[in-house]
Amino acid sequence: MRVSELSRLSAVPVPTIKYYLREGLLPAGEQRGATQADYGDTHVARLRLIRSLADVAGLSIIMIKRILTLAESPSGDLFDTLGQAISALPPYVPGSSDDPGRELPRARDAITRLGWTYDPGYAATAQLERAIAAVEEAGIPLSDQRLEAYATALHGLAEFDLAAMPGADGASSIPAAAVEYAVLGTALYEPVILALRRLAHQDVAARALGGRSADPDPSTTRLSAG
Amino acid sequence: MRVSELSRLSAVPVPTIKYYLREGLLPAGEQRGATQADYGDTHVARLRLIRSLADVAGLSIIMIKRILTLAESPSGDLFDTLGQAISALPPYVPGSSDDPGRELPRARDAITRLGWTYDPGYAATAQLERAIAAVEEAGIPLSDQRLEAYATALHGLAEFDLAAMPGADGASSIPAAAVEYAVLGTALYEPVILALRRLAHQDVAARALGGRSADPDPSTTRLSAG
Repeated sequence: MRVSELSRLSAVPVPTIKYYLREGLLPAGEQRGATQADYGDTHVARLRLIRSLADVAGLSIIMIKRILTLAESPSGDLFDTLGQAISALPPYVPGSSDDPGRELPRARDAITRLGWTYDPGYAATAQLERAIAAVEEAGIPLSDQRLEAYATALHGLAEFDLAAMPGADGASSIPAAAVEYAVLGTALYEPVILALRRLAHQDVAARALGGRSADPDPSTTRLSAG
Repeated sequence: MRVSELSRLSAVPVPTIKYYLREGLLPAGEQRGATQADYGDTHVARLRLIRSLADVAGLSIIMIKRILTLAESPSGDLFDTLGQAISALPPYVPGSSDDPGRELPRARDAITRLGWTYDPGYAATAQLERAIAAVEEAGIPLSDQRLEAYATALHGLAEFDLAAMPGADGASSIPAAAVEYAVLGTALYEPVILALRRLAHQDVAARALGGRSADPDPSTTRLSAG
């Protein structure tokens, strides 16, 4: 198809498509004469992915290019590639990449307590350090009980995510699809998780406070199990 | 104490304290003569709360004032007060308050499937609608299995949060403390949850992909349970 048709199908304006071509985010079409190129379904799919990363995940063109490059040329170690791709996502923790060897005492204590692997060079570790410091500062520190309750719930959720990852069944190994899934799943499912958490609070509160529940019988409240 | 001492203890500059006093975020001190006022521990605590809401939760002065007003003058119905306070937190969903009666089909289907109460006027409902639309657009729609796995995990987490809320034990009813806890807990624990989710992904991936786990024995991978 021509670039005008590609624009129509992807709902991306022609000048934007040309910008993505120049920046190397979109592979060139097949050349048909001096001024025309032919595009295919892979271009439509790639444009949809770029728009998701830009509009929905809020990533800059530089970050999108870094992620697409990782997805296309994985280092061979899928674990490292996934880690690098997810590190390209916000929130960016100031200084975290400047000094990967620095100590992150709150995150180290929490991660060690959970039996997970403490790696101060991983972006999410610095993110956790800052988040724990913030709740301490606000006077509602992260207790061991809360850490363990949260970690158990989120580990279950992560197990679901990884089991659903392309190639996780061992039948195939598609690093590009896995990277795309991991990046989009991380960036785009975070708003789903935060919205569901607030709605779960509402449901728990409605049952506990005798509010607006569909089933106002207080004997069925799940709060007592918490 | 004088305003200079209040500034020193709270690490908030005097001009900022005066601004909060003028805006009604901070109650006036006890007047000691024409130009001096006396401040106490409640002022230090209030300043710490304002700074947490502004710097860490990223709220505007208008939003902070709305939340503080709710905490001080709860409507009497704690459930409504908590809902209103949490609705003052970002993310703000465009148009959600303009038309509370509009239909949110994706959120309605998801919430109904979970057996929770669908309320299109609640900010988190519009937030969920938008989040589900975004993952659909990106080509990784929310499956029923994923919805249920996520909702189960997040409901457990919400039960923990509500059980730890001041007054949740029924021994006391302190609406201001409950509102402060709910707002700070929602705003400040979201970064903790997102960081823990990314670290849980790393832990699950390390075990499944034979990566950097502290226990690399593949027979202990938890992925198979996912």
